[in-house]
Amino acid sequence: MSREQFQECIEECLACVKACNHCFNACLGEENVNMMAECIRLDRECADICSYAADAMSRNSPFAQEICSLCAQICEACGNECKKHDHDHCQKCAKACLRCAEVCRKMVT
Amino acid sequence: MSREQFQECIEECLACVKACNHCFNACLGEENVNMMAECIRLDRECADICSYAADAMSRNSPFAQEICSLCAQICEACGNECKKHDHDHCQKCAKACLRCAEVCRKMVT
Amino acid sequence: MSREQFQECIEECLACVKACNHCFNACLGEENVNMMAECIRLDRECADICSYAADAMSRNSPFAQEICSLCAQICEACGNECKKHDHDHCQKCAKACLRCAEVCRKMVT
Amino acid sequence: MSREQFQECIEECLACVKACNHCFNACLGEENVNMMAECIRLDRECADICSYAADAMSRNSPFAQEICSLCAQICEACGNECKKHDHDHCQKCAKACLRCAEVCRKMVT
Repeated sequence: MSREQFQECIEECLACVKACNHCFNACLGEENVNMMAECIRLDRECADICSYAADAMSRNSPFAQEICSLCAQICEACGNECKKHDHDHCQKCAKACLRCAEVCRKMVT
Repeated sequence: MSREQFQECIEECLACVKACNHCFNACLGEENVNMMAECIRLDRECADICSYAADAMSRNSPFAQEICSLCAQICEACGNECKKHDHDHCQKCAKACLRCAEVCRKMVT
Repeated sequence: MSREQFQECIEECLACVKACNHCFNACLGEENVNMMAECIRLDRECADICSYAADAMSRNSPFAQEICSLCAQICEACGNECKKHDHDHCQKCAKACLRCAEVCRKMVT
Repeated sequence: MSREQFQECIEECLACVKACNHCFNACLGEENVNMMAECIRLDRECADICSYAADAMSRNSPFAQEICSLCAQICEACGNECKKHDHDHCQKCAKACLRCAEVCRKMVT
């Protein structure tokens, strides 16, 4: 795995943390919060794993590949939930999640 | 500050993480999630700082006092929000938060 | 998976965070820090995943099993490193890690 | 506080996480690890608070100012330790820490 791949993956994870946390906060302010419950839950799950993954990669963790594999899975679940909702923050979050999932998956193979 | 005080504060922080996360999850499953939005937000804030504080104290962080001071403030805000709600998980969470705030405050003086 | 199993696993993860962070701190104060470098590195890796796993389980994360599976792997690596060293903090940490690995593995099957 | 200020502070915190974790990893591989013990300890402290601060700011935490105030203090301590060492990773880390401390301090006033 090249150093560039690592850097790209760290950046995608950090972009995903920001998108998920922005979406989390915005969902809690929507008119119908009930409809956003699963989105809120997964935004937190996804922000947490992405933050952990970026942290681990930046310290050159010996478990970077396994962590990225888990991260890809959680990002994909969050992206699939977010893309069901029309809100701009959800659509943007879905894109960040699915892109991050793809980059994380490339770290593993 | 005695070793026993440290241990007690770590345990209260970890109990608070569990209560806040349980409340977070339960709030997302309530009938009226709109009413719980502020509780959901503060449960996450409080779980995060308590987890960070317990982690820092257990590695004997040189910043333990400053972290506990911040933790006390966030726990108090979360406890005050939670106690407004009648749900059993909110009432239990309020108690855990306010107890943790008190123990954290004692670390500082 | 029963609620009791979940509770037990959360407790083992939190005990492991405390043992790893205590060992991390003690290793940095040893006479020969060079010899402890791998232990220091893995103590941090293990404390981080265990803290994340306990947090995730306590909010009933839909990814609890996958997280526990990763946690078991990192705990085992840390336990195997720690048990090479005679220091009391390393031996205690090794026991906490290997016990946590075992309990996490039971969550998965 | 403007949205631009927030964004700048998040970016500085994330840059500081990366610099501290890189330095942590590099210090553990130095010939004389004993001399780097305090640097290793503070790198972890600083990476943890910066990661937490960036996470909190990106979800618009009501405690952003208090968290940034604590972050500034820890960044400053880490920067002051790192700048004592000639290693390139320490010098770069010192710069990232002291810049982050400054930006965090501006969030508070």
